[in-house]
Amino acid sequence: MPRFALLIEYNGAPFSGWQRQKDHPSVQQCVEEALRKIDPDCPTIGAAGRTDAGVHAKGQVAHCDLKRDWEPFRLMEAVNFHLKPNPIAILDAVPMPDDWHARYAAYERRYTFHLIARRAPAAHAAGLAWQVRGPLDLAAMQEGAKRLLGTHDFTTFRSTMCQAQSPVKTMDEITIEEHDYSYGKEFRFHLRARSFLHNQVRSIVGSLERVGGGHWAPEKITEVLEARDRNACGPVTPPDGLFMTGVGYKEKPFGF
Amino acid sequence: MPRFALLIEYNGAPFSGWQRQKDHPSVQQCVEEALRKIDPDCPTIGAAGRTDAGVHAKGQVAHCDLKRDWEPFRLMEAVNFHLKPNPIAILDAVPMPDDWHARYAAYERRYTFHLIARRAPAAHAAGLAWQVRGPLDLAAMQEGAKRLLGTHDFTTFRSTMCQAQSPVKTMDEITIEEHDYSYGKEFRFHLRARSFLHNQVRSIVGSLERVGGGHWAPEKITEVLEARDRNACGPVTPPDGLFMTGVGYKEKPFGF
Repeated sequence: MPRFALLIEYNGAPFSGWQRQKDHPSVQQCVEEALRKIDPDCPTIGAAGRTDAGVHAKGQVAHCDLKRDWEPFRLMEAVNFHLKPNPIAILDAVPMPDDWHARYAAYERRYTFHLIARRAPAAHAAGLAWQVRGPLDLAAMQEGAKRLLGTHDFTTFRSTMCQAQSPVKTMDEITIEEHDYSYGKEFRFHLRARSFLHNQVRSIVGSLERVGGGHWAPEKITEVLEARDRNACGPVTPPDGLFMTGVGYKEKPFGF
Repeated sequence: MPRFALLIEYNGAPFSGWQRQKDHPSVQQCVEEALRKIDPDCPTIGAAGRTDAGVHAKGQVAHCDLKRDWEPFRLMEAVNFHLKPNPIAILDAVPMPDDWHARYAAYERRYTFHLIARRAPAAHAAGLAWQVRGPLDLAAMQEGAKRLLGTHDFTTFRSTMCQAQSPVKTMDEITIEEHDYSYGKEFRFHLRARSFLHNQVRSIVGSLERVGGGHWAPEKITEVLEARDRNACGPVTPPDGLFMTGVGYKEKPFGF
């Protein structure tokens, strides 16, 4: 059965997350159902990362096995046709070796979190960003963020539901961009790591927002990290602003 | 009664447009109802431009008359509180002379239209952009656009419902920016004029898209303009991608 890598974009708002669940719509279920319209025997698909309810993707990656050796563009077109009207799109499809695995072959995951700091509600960002009403200090958040770079025990920044065997992870990037946003600012947090703990990005951004708003000194990030205590974490952000933006593979199936 | 200029942002999707209508929700109605929560006698408000159903605003301007001399920030906060949960926000409120009029004092209106050209559906742009599936040629659209600059009879680009007395308008700007958009491109059309005819922006962008897609030569824009015939126009775009971005006043009430 030919294996394909799929590059997937979705709006997470209507879904209970990537992973198939019994009584709730999931992205995985929608993609599998679309695939089974073109190949009824298509087995369960595997993804690079399981995004939570409401979390978006611009670069989720999954692999699927199909009976026929599809021309990739036609495969993409057919699956996108059957995905309608769900807010999910296949951006690219690439044939891969039979033993290539979207999850195990990944050497890093990339996420971006959109945070709008503005007094008045943001009418066009509903569901696509987290909004706070006070201003945020970029330099303070950057000073806090760099304290999380490298290899640490991230127990503080890990959901109590997390099933990872170890709380030790290595953060390769936590950068923050500031953009003008009419009468306010938009901050984009870019995080990059081999893998993340459950709720780790939202826990980190929620804690850095405490720093940006002046409630915490940047040094407190080191303190709460070293506490290795979930209760020391800042408030976990809502899922709205979180986008899975890409997955790193040495084979670069999509050319980047 | 103190008069205030209000800078208003809204997502047009749930509304029948700016203007109050009998049986359909409008932006004007929502803003007036919020104002009447703080001042039951607040008269009907006037806006710089009447946006159509589904059209958005980042910089609509209206004026209102209130009994009390509100501190502008408190006024904005109070109205935004009562506007919830509608996707409408007051970005700024500024006291103005009693005879200042949001519509008559305006010397120009500015609109931006967002057009995504990509094969796969854009999962995060629903309602906020118009999407076409084929690529578009920026230079050809720019060549077509410049043929519409200046003063012309825009009968071709005017809805048959348009109530303006004259079809003659002066286009001061039609510029087009191209941005990367994952596996596609986003084009932003910026249009600026003293005033516009009904559906003029959507008629112009719909015709320029014909040029960008290679269906029309850029010279055809001159031909259809000179036809002064509504039937010569390209397909009118959906409202989704259209944003009223600003209004020009010599008093610059909002500082720009």
